[in-house]
Amino acid sequence: MGMKVGFVQFEPLFGEVDRNLERAGDLIMGSDADLLVLPELFNTGYVFTSKEETISLSEQIPEGRTTQRLCELAREKETFIVGGLAEKDNGRTFNSAVLVSPGGYIGRYRKTHLFFEEKVWFDPGDEGFKVYDIGTCTVGIMICFDWFFPESMRALSLMGADIICHPANLVLPFCQESMKTRCLENHVFAITANRTGTEARGDTALLFTGMSQVTGPDGSVLFRGGGDSEEVRTVEIDPKAARDKNVNTYNNLFADRRPGFYGDLVGKNTKE
Amino acid sequence: MGMKVGFVQFEPLFGEVDRNLERAGDLIMGSDADLLVLPELFNTGYVFTSKEETISLSEQIPEGRTTQRLCELAREKETFIVGGLAEKDNGRTFNSAVLVSPGGYIGRYRKTHLFFEEKVWFDPGDEGFKVYDIGTCTVGIMICFDWFFPESMRALSLMGADIICHPANLVLPFCQESMKTRCLENHVFAITANRTGTEARGDTALLFTGMSQVTGPDGSVLFRGGGDSEEVRTVEIDPKAARDKNVNTYNNLFADRRPGFYGDLVGKNTKE
Repeated sequence: MGMKVGFVQFEPLFGEVDRNLERAGDLIMGSDADLLVLPELFNTGYVFTSKEETISLSEQIPEGRTTQRLCELAREKETFIVGGLAEKDNGRTFNSAVLVSPGGYIGRYRKTHLFFEEKVWFDPGDEGFKVYDIGTCTVGIMICFDWFFPESMRALSLMGADIICHPANLVLPFCQESMKTRCLENHVFAITANRTGTEARGDTALLFTGMSQVTGPDGSVLFRGGGDSEEVRTVEIDPKAARDKNVNTYNNLFADRRPGFYGDLVGKNTKE
Repeated sequence: MGMKVGFVQFEPLFGEVDRNLERAGDLIMGSDADLLVLPELFNTGYVFTSKEETISLSEQIPEGRTTQRLCELAREKETFIVGGLAEKDNGRTFNSAVLVSPGGYIGRYRKTHLFFEEKVWFDPGDEGFKVYDIGTCTVGIMICFDWFFPESMRALSLMGADIICHPANLVLPFCQESMKTRCLENHVFAITANRTGTEARGDTALLFTGMSQVTGPDGSVLFRGGGDSEEVRTVEIDPKAARDKNVNTYNNLFADRRPGFYGDLVGKNTKE
């Protein structure tokens, strides 16, 4: 059964939450998607300068206005939405994403692998990876730099994700091409929603690379956005195509794994 | 310190072990490498038709003539060589590779993830992944389809491999591009030595894709061979460049891993 999935790509302005929610809302309202992914930290912008500033701009999930607004949009447009936002929880802050539905809030993900100065601004995610059965498919969430670690999408895929929803604020040039390999090795779809524009605050100026991308389970790029354009785009897919992990009559991507030969090193349980 | 590493790419003829050893030897003798990688099953060819045929063409390691001939070549050229061959051991057969040095035989690897009808011809590797400190660097070995499973290179890299030696007989179009991601995510070098030509036996005809490749720890292609050429090529590298796993002042590819959040799924110890 076909399903329209896609991304919202735009340039958030730092600290202008009202404006960013409005801009994202306008783009969402112009779409006919069944599932849409927004960038990482789409409501606040990216370059924080202190933990205090992060706390001041963060919101509780799901009580905060960003999650509530996404729930309204999801209800109005009868769509599922994944979007990244700064989360506040008892003095801690997380680089999080929420999944909302036409029926309301479903769940959140707190970024596991923080990038660069995010380690100053945020606490590392403390809840791990989760997947959600939303009826038409099962979705998993990871955020930006999580992609660099193959374990992130492997864990989500082994848990049953058909589609990896991937809010991002990419500044390195590797992710879009590498998502072909990530989707191929797990035979899943992925929606990488990146932001655009340059953000300069304090000593830091970052250029975000756009080129948001929907990637197929055979590693093909189903759609790639422009490098500096604001756009909402959807692609029609059959999410069930991700469920057959057979490569041929002899090989299956999951059954052929031999964890006994990589478990001690790859999956060692540590202090966490 | 610079080190010349490379691959031997050629077309083995099925079952013509003498001829294949001679052809590989000629190519090796024309090289000035410190470390050379030969294709998977370079001595026998690839398309076996039965377990019995595999047994008849397989050799003991290190007593068999292929390993012994590689030891001679390594001594004469003062180089390290990794090459793939069919191994026989008490009635079992393995798709193996050996590492030999100017001082003689060092070790073997038995392919962990068998591809397609290899599951008929060979037993699955029973010894897992190993790395070898050869003085100038530490090498790890994987064979062909092992690349598809990110756990293979992850395990070798976490064990300390600087260079992944990767004998291959590639028939799918994905590996060469994906090796950029594999090297990037582990910050290691890789030498993928592929064969060329078409092999038709029984009901099976396979076209091998050549394009052997040396890939750098930043995901760059340092050299890629032709699709249908016989060639031995080397690239000068500093293998120690693989040892610094820092991405920036905040991120380290290995220290940032959070195995507690993927251990149960990704590294689960099973029956093996």
